[in-house]
Amino acid sequence: MWLQRELVLDPHPRGFHLVTREVVAGLPELGDLRVGLAHLFLQHTSASLTLNENASPDVRRDFRAYFDEAVPEDAPYWTHRLEGPDDMPAHIKGSLLGISLTLPVSDGRLALGTWQGIYLCEHRDDGGARRLLATLWGEAGG
Amino acid sequence: MWLQRELVLDPHPRGFHLVTREVVAGLPELGDLRVGLAHLFLQHTSASLTLNENASPDVRRDFRAYFDEAVPEDAPYWTHRLEGPDDMPAHIKGSLLGISLTLPVSDGRLALGTWQGIYLCEHRDDGGARRLLATLWGEAGG
Amino acid sequence: MWLQRELVLDPHPRGFHLVTREVVAGLPELGDLRVGLAHLFLQHTSASLTLNENASPDVRRDFRAYFDEAVPEDAPYWTHRLEGPDDMPAHIKGSLLGISLTLPVSDGRLALGTWQGIYLCEHRDDGGARRLLATLWGEAGG
Repeated sequence: MWLQRELVLDPHPRGFHLVTREVVAGLPELGDLRVGLAHLFLQHTSASLTLNENASPDVRRDFRAYFDEAVPEDAPYWTHRLEGPDDMPAHIKGSLLGISLTLPVSDGRLALGTWQGIYLCEHRDDGGARRLLATLWGEAGG
Repeated sequence: MWLQRELVLDPHPRGFHLVTREVVAGLPELGDLRVGLAHLFLQHTSASLTLNENASPDVRRDFRAYFDEAVPEDAPYWTHRLEGPDDMPAHIKGSLLGISLTLPVSDGRLALGTWQGIYLCEHRDDGGARRLLATLWGEAGG
Repeated sequence: MWLQRELVLDPHPRGFHLVTREVVAGLPELGDLRVGLAHLFLQHTSASLTLNENASPDVRRDFRAYFDEAVPEDAPYWTHRLEGPDDMPAHIKGSLLGISLTLPVSDGRLALGTWQGIYLCEHRDDGGARRLLATLWGEAGG
């Protein structure tokens, strides 16, 4: 069984946002898979997907604080500045965290750990809606 | 051919630990795959999997030194401190290094480079045993 | 449909290099896939693959500047120094950026976003040619 579908994630401000519910809601065919995988892929270069703690909003706030500090806007070595001070740091953060996730599927559900949730990491101040190409494959019978 | 199995990795202290042997020993069905892939997925938010140099223990020691320096416990911007000073840095390190690996399988074996080994990156001081969900798929005939 | 093939990437100097064209040229069977995935895997521990902006050479130059600053050669905590000052930073950068990519395939082409390109991230000064093991799988009919 193969399925490929583009999902559109609503615009989010710069920061780390839990989107597990939107992603699962957009992929009802997950329920048909007994065993398989889901590949989630952002078609962008200034946003990321990662898995992390799904309960405390302060964890997501601290993610933003850390990455803004670790990849500073005012670093003297940036030469690519045409699109604004958040642009080059957004590219770097995009690659540090990565633009895709491959997740296991078991008995019709994403096989995430209890505390794992999918984060959309929006690295631009005004990134707009984000296109996510999802691919599911595996054995039917969920 | 599809196989999905939970492996449990023994508790390790904070640091970077070579676990290639345990993972391969837990997946004897690798030998049945002529060509395919192995997806290894930690169901946690404060540990990672990565591939790196499999020979020198000093490489793994330097990994710990680097990540403890790059993601400091005493940073002024942490607000999520309830679970101890190693908690929030562990979440960040978890996402910097990632919680899963997708590895090629050829002729019944993981097709790793000569110097590549699988690291369990334990970011907590007392993380305990870690659950790894492994998924194998491909063409039989190894 | 399954295909696995080793590609050899020409030697590159330390830095970030766009290799989308070489990779696609080495995998003409992409054209046979209606829907599927491509897994690209470096069999090394001191180089990476990432996706990022495919237009401006200054973005790739800034990637090098950032990572050379974030993972300094002269850090006091390196103990693994036998293979030269660029060795241990190369291992760390290798794991920060990762050694593999999983890319969606649609209608016979890599389904990349408009601005996405494949970067070979060469972390050694003299890394030489790099072996990339590519695995394609999916449904034929592209």
